[in-house]
Amino acid sequence: MKHTEPALQIDIRGATSAKLAKAHRLNPSDLQGIEPRIRAVLKRMAAERTQGKHRYRELPYRLVECRTIQALAAEYRPQVENLVVLGIGGSALGNIALQTALNSPFYNVQPRERRGGPRLFVIDNVDATYVGDLLDLLDDELPNTLFNVISKSGETAETSSQFLIMRELLRKRLGPLGARRNILVTTDASHGSMRAIVDREGYRSLIVPDGVGGRFSVLSPVGLFSAAMCGIDIEQLLAGAAAMDRRLDAPRLAANPAATIAAVKYLYTQRGKPLHVMMPYSQQLRDMADWYRQLWAESLGKRYDEQGRREVFAGATPIKALGATDQHSQVQLYREGPNDKLIVFLEVEEPARDVTIPHAFADVEAMRYLGGATVHGLLNAEKKATEQALQVSQRPTMTIRFPRISAHAVGQFIYLYEVATTIMGYLLGIDPYDQPAVELGKKITFHLMGRRGYETRPTE
Amino acid sequence: MKHTEPALQIDIRGATSAKLAKAHRLNPSDLQGIEPRIRAVLKRMAAERTQGKHRYRELPYRLVECRTIQALAAEYRPQVENLVVLGIGGSALGNIALQTALNSPFYNVQPRERRGGPRLFVIDNVDATYVGDLLDLLDDELPNTLFNVISKSGETAETSSQFLIMRELLRKRLGPLGARRNILVTTDASHGSMRAIVDREGYRSLIVPDGVGGRFSVLSPVGLFSAAMCGIDIEQLLAGAAAMDRRLDAPRLAANPAATIAAVKYLYTQRGKPLHVMMPYSQQLRDMADWYRQLWAESLGKRYDEQGRREVFAGATPIKALGATDQHSQVQLYREGPNDKLIVFLEVEEPARDVTIPHAFADVEAMRYLGGATVHGLLNAEKKATEQALQVSQRPTMTIRFPRISAHAVGQFIYLYEVATTIMGYLLGIDPYDQPAVELGKKITFHLMGRRGYETRPTE
Repeated sequence: MKHTEPALQIDIRGATSAKLAKAHRLNPSDLQGIEPRIRAVLKRMAAERTQGKHRYRELPYRLVECRTIQALAAEYRPQVENLVVLGIGGSALGNIALQTALNSPFYNVQPRERRGGPRLFVIDNVDATYVGDLLDLLDDELPNTLFNVISKSGETAETSSQFLIMRELLRKRLGPLGARRNILVTTDASHGSMRAIVDREGYRSLIVPDGVGGRFSVLSPVGLFSAAMCGIDIEQLLAGAAAMDRRLDAPRLAANPAATIAAVKYLYTQRGKPLHVMMPYSQQLRDMADWYRQLWAESLGKRYDEQGRREVFAGATPIKALGATDQHSQVQLYREGPNDKLIVFLEVEEPARDVTIPHAFADVEAMRYLGGATVHGLLNAEKKATEQALQVSQRPTMTIRFPRISAHAVGQFIYLYEVATTIMGYLLGIDPYDQPAVELGKKITFHLMGRRGYETRPTE
Repeated sequence: MKHTEPALQIDIRGATSAKLAKAHRLNPSDLQGIEPRIRAVLKRMAAERTQGKHRYRELPYRLVECRTIQALAAEYRPQVENLVVLGIGGSALGNIALQTALNSPFYNVQPRERRGGPRLFVIDNVDATYVGDLLDLLDDELPNTLFNVISKSGETAETSSQFLIMRELLRKRLGPLGARRNILVTTDASHGSMRAIVDREGYRSLIVPDGVGGRFSVLSPVGLFSAAMCGIDIEQLLAGAAAMDRRLDAPRLAANPAATIAAVKYLYTQRGKPLHVMMPYSQQLRDMADWYRQLWAESLGKRYDEQGRREVFAGATPIKALGATDQHSQVQLYREGPNDKLIVFLEVEEPARDVTIPHAFADVEAMRYLGGATVHGLLNAEKKATEQALQVSQRPTMTIRFPRISAHAVGQFIYLYEVATTIMGYLLGIDPYDQPAVELGKKITFHLMGRRGYETRPTE
């Protein structure tokens, strides 16, 4: 695939249209007004990048690692019928999103010969039925089941529990050697409890890169191994991300898609629209919106400013929606409820396949007009209709247009949104890379579960 | 199952705790203050119910219909390997929620002997890959595939398109007789395009009850048939709903769970917390939150008051979350972002099954403390920890506690939330049963697709 892959396009006409009243519209002057700040943010980011910050931005260029992952996947693939990823949050959302974007919605129920690899189960929760039923399902197939444990530190209670359960089961059924063969751990190169266990037990491992937070890690071995196992072209993912990277140094807002997304979302946040809906008109891009949900919420929801001094309670609430499905669930609210949302559509121009709707019931108008149209044509007409209906109700929108869904385009999208998140964080004046508020819940869990060192109930 | 099933409990201590500052707490005086309005709403609803309004409230008592559905399911089940539901919005969300709540998360990938019925596919979108890949999957299995088309009117473009595609395929592969045998339509008893087609083609059909909107229809044949096919005890669902009904006439707020939910959510909406998160700590209840999302958004998001005169732009934005998974995605925002949310947890006391975490790595504390605990114990500890962490951050919560997940409990929950929605609508002074804003998008779609009668672009 050496031909040039087409680029994602950003369309903000749904936010700048003269059909919107002044209170809900972005004027050229609004965008010009924020341009100097954007320029300063981009300059700062470029300087910091040369100093080794924003490390996720280097992931698209780790081609040697990419080939190692491909080789490992090629080695495992012939013997593995089931790949079970044990991870949560940033160690699961990207894996799920890649799988559903780039493989069939029916991947796991398809016969093996139609799949590009093993069945994939991403066990991203501690739920007894979920875990127990998985054990039942895999009972007869344990010899051909590979468990990919993803945890940078080994401190995550959910992943550690799952690891303990699966390891014990493998040891019982396949012996210590089998357990070793069927576990692959993705963890820190040298630190943490999980690294210690890997070294002691002799598990094979992949490395979670330093300086890349979980929610920015999908283009690292964290997300790439399961993708490669399931037949996704991970080189093209990285190529797409690198192609997007080349567009993101542009200092002019209009030429820089990440800056455009951040600027539009920032301006609306300041104007009483802090609910940021992502609504793919594509069943396959559905879980990309879930991945975005973590990226946006955890990066931007911050009590203190970057210096840790001023209370800001910053953040915008990401909301995952799905077109056309949610026209029948959420659009009533989006049109008539509080005008507090910006809706970002994902649209796909060229479908990977299409289905023609047959002609029938020529005398029943509710059926007749559909005959001869295609399913994709209908979906995109619905997107346009929803966009226009929202505009009539004075609700702003924007569109990110995929020429088609490919590993390259998905790579572009991931990288685009990661950088947009960093820019948005800097505009809000907060640190987009920490997550201090997650700690207390973890500590109280340790306390409740009787972990040593947490004997007294933590209060922060 | 004639023994008494335990009742769902509502716990609002996370909203009334003295640990919350005044601005974020509900005081006894707040609840007393709204009690007269609640009483008036309940009185009005009771009077209207005797006049034939709130028709969804009678669904739990349609036992004859329930037995008809069971008999039909029993007849189909031995021959049907795949059940495909064609529907969208209220004709899909309830079906999905019942299935995932009451059957295994791995239902469709399990071998048939472990399942209670056929594989279930609910095709709730028009997406070419989604539809096309389903056709490939079912290609060899069409004779044993039943399509349940759910559309009250036949006017829904998404469902009609799918119906046309599947009908054509069946006719090609199985002839007109096969097409007739493998299609079951759930539609209006006497009106609409779909009823006309049913009568003409001779399809078997189930009836969408009059006066029950899509989002309130899960306990009708719309939701019950697919559930019965997949081995769910639909009598127990209805029994649970009826049991809940008996609790919902109580005029005192504290004794009436639906009134309590509505009052708490209404009071917080008025106080700057119009984002209503539902966060089940249960993988199985995950899609119940998606069902709730439609119910809450489409019922309450209204531009005009009930009289259609005053602009109110009412509504609260429902947000679907999942514990423990979203601790690693959303809780950073929920704790440190804008204090604009009320978080409603769903908690399960007694799991259907549990898995013990084995002891291992006694010298690695990150593993040691987990040994001997159960997965369900860990999950509920995480829920408690999250609740406490949110409280430290002055974020209100409440909990709906399931004694266990059963058809009875799910029936209770569905009925509870439906009535809470009606009460909330009346408190907001809007009509919870219409959805006027959905029409424009449909009309513009008709226009774009060339439907007769929509030659000029509709503007409302």
